[in-house]
Amino acid sequence: MFVTRFEVLGLQHRYYGESMPYGSREEAYKNVTTLAHLTAEQALADYAVLITELKRNLSAQACPVVLFGGSYGGMLAAWMRLKYPHIAIGALASSAPVLQFEDIVPPEIFYDIVSNDFRRESVDCFNTIKKSWNVIASEGEKNDGLLRLTRTFRFCKKLETADDLSNWLSSAYSYLAMGNYPYPSDFLMPMPGNPIKEVCRRIDSCPDGTGILQRIFEGVSVYYNYTGTVDCFDLDDDPHGMTSGWDWQACSEMIMPFASSKNTSMFPAYDYDYTSEEELCLENFHVKPRPTWITTEFGGHGFKSVLKTFGSNIIFSNGLLDPWSGGSVLEDISDTIVALVTEKGAHHLDLRPATAQDPDWLVDQRTAEVELIKGWLEEYYEKRKATFDM
Amino acid sequence: MFVTRFEVLGLQHRYYGESMPYGSREEAYKNVTTLAHLTAEQALADYAVLITELKRNLSAQACPVVLFGGSYGGMLAAWMRLKYPHIAIGALASSAPVLQFEDIVPPEIFYDIVSNDFRRESVDCFNTIKKSWNVIASEGEKNDGLLRLTRTFRFCKKLETADDLSNWLSSAYSYLAMGNYPYPSDFLMPMPGNPIKEVCRRIDSCPDGTGILQRIFEGVSVYYNYTGTVDCFDLDDDPHGMTSGWDWQACSEMIMPFASSKNTSMFPAYDYDYTSEEELCLENFHVKPRPTWITTEFGGHGFKSVLKTFGSNIIFSNGLLDPWSGGSVLEDISDTIVALVTEKGAHHLDLRPATAQDPDWLVDQRTAEVELIKGWLEEYYEKRKATFDM
Repeated sequence: MFVTRFEVLGLQHRYYGESMPYGSREEAYKNVTTLAHLTAEQALADYAVLITELKRNLSAQACPVVLFGGSYGGMLAAWMRLKYPHIAIGALASSAPVLQFEDIVPPEIFYDIVSNDFRRESVDCFNTIKKSWNVIASEGEKNDGLLRLTRTFRFCKKLETADDLSNWLSSAYSYLAMGNYPYPSDFLMPMPGNPIKEVCRRIDSCPDGTGILQRIFEGVSVYYNYTGTVDCFDLDDDPHGMTSGWDWQACSEMIMPFASSKNTSMFPAYDYDYTSEEELCLENFHVKPRPTWITTEFGGHGFKSVLKTFGSNIIFSNGLLDPWSGGSVLEDISDTIVALVTEKGAHHLDLRPATAQDPDWLVDQRTAEVELIKGWLEEYYEKRKATFDM
Repeated sequence: MFVTRFEVLGLQHRYYGESMPYGSREEAYKNVTTLAHLTAEQALADYAVLITELKRNLSAQACPVVLFGGSYGGMLAAWMRLKYPHIAIGALASSAPVLQFEDIVPPEIFYDIVSNDFRRESVDCFNTIKKSWNVIASEGEKNDGLLRLTRTFRFCKKLETADDLSNWLSSAYSYLAMGNYPYPSDFLMPMPGNPIKEVCRRIDSCPDGTGILQRIFEGVSVYYNYTGTVDCFDLDDDPHGMTSGWDWQACSEMIMPFASSKNTSMFPAYDYDYTSEEELCLENFHVKPRPTWITTEFGGHGFKSVLKTFGSNIIFSNGLLDPWSGGSVLEDISDTIVALVTEKGAHHLDLRPATAQDPDWLVDQRTAEVELIKGWLEEYYEKRKATFDM
């Protein structure tokens, strides 16, 4: 019989939030030299030192540690379990795209999933969005076209290019897919439950004769103005607080190839172009990306066969509506490295607080997670007991 | 049926030999900032990148890699297998003191093993050496004592302290224990086979009435002057080429506690004193040691229980005459993490070239290693075959 007490610790990644080296955000983000320590490996080493020291200070060296993380945090949780098995007995890696590197998964998979999220709600909606990019581009080329686009989409300042509008819309669709939760939420922006259903309802339910651009505006307002309180929009309103830190990481080591398929995606088609990514990184951060580093450091190619014989106690949880699920692990790798997949889940939905509106499949997913983690703990305590009995 | 071809690659650790960053040894060893990348983690990352790129260049991605290393290199081999299982299928870690950190093994163990190597040859010899330290110290305090010591031990320049002589002798005894091979060798210095037996023979066989200091000189000449070509000795003749690099590592992260037991050691007794070590490191390298880092990064406490459930395919080979065996793994941890121990082996003897004088127990140890490695390869190829057949 154990008297068990749990502590939940939130560890902040250096260079984010208040964990700022060099005394201030300005200094920390000053140049390549000061940014050099903003890496996944450094974050894991920080966690290793913090957890080890904390347990020592609390005389809790024998207490088992389980890692939880979502998205990039989910990748860190999985990688930490692999690299520091002596520190953590297991990891729940929610929506962790550990395979979204090099050519391990097709680069189109992210936007294909976003697109499918819209198509499953309404083929008309999908087609309206797919057609809209050309309409925006050709409008942008006309006399006063940018002014008309600015008015239609209610921007506070005049658009400088039609591409800015397209990027603003693409971004919204991707975040809608990530936050496509079954109940109202505030993931990056306030949104209704099943927000993509609502976007498509608005796009599709405009009166006959409504133009494509007006329909798109009605739809995207579900993301950018669900509360109805916004008078006009700013292009550079970035709700994603960690952007510049992540941009550095995406330019230095987290090199994830993305593309948009001409056939299956509703987004403007484009191929993955490493060279232009590299140029942008050199321009913005004076850093040359290391596109093969993450798989060298953490594995990737043959991930499943390596993990089968090596790792243990990792849950990869995913919802298939989440575009990041395309780069994650969706099949069991072994008895102890398991995939928990929900058809209707979105981005790390399982890590959100439990609510009265949680559908059964979400409750079931969390129950399965708790049962697995209980198993890890029981195994850990049994082994300890066996050691003491010896 | 496979047509198998082996390639043996020697990977040089950065900051050693010709693998010098910053363009030159002088620049690389200039200060704390330039030395900061001389770490075990950096070396492993270098190997990971090198092996991965090399396999890619040779279109040999599917070829299995087995790591071999002795001493510090053995630690790197074991740690790399743990940290990079996707890159190497197994490791032979010869004489790898992965447990020589913090309080995992007693700090006296190293010098106790050296001492036992002498005692097993001759108790008289052990006692002569044990008594010699006081004789040296009191001689050093007398008028012209340092001059007499200088002459007795044939130094080219006059000794500045008696401690310098003691350290010079201690160092020889430790290297004699490491290089206590069953046949003549040139490990750091040319030595006869079973060199400690020869040291003790010389110490013990001096005519009756020979003083302790003369006996010690006769003995230590087996190490410093076996070829008989040395006219006079230099204190700072350091045969251990990598010293300053290793000294940096020993001051930054490879913090190994050593002590000498009053009762069981033949060396001058001393306790492990972290504070004075830290002071020396601050003085010599301006670096503050991180004494708990290695076990945080690579494990150490509870190493065996973690490895039992996590790692695989590591051979820890040791010879019990080797003082470093005290900090290594001497028992099987699991079916695939095994200890191969020889009673009469010394420092990574198994990694030396095969010779006609190899005793049977050494031939047997190497055969056991080859069989285990063959098993890893067969398992690897079978799994690959199973994957292709699917």
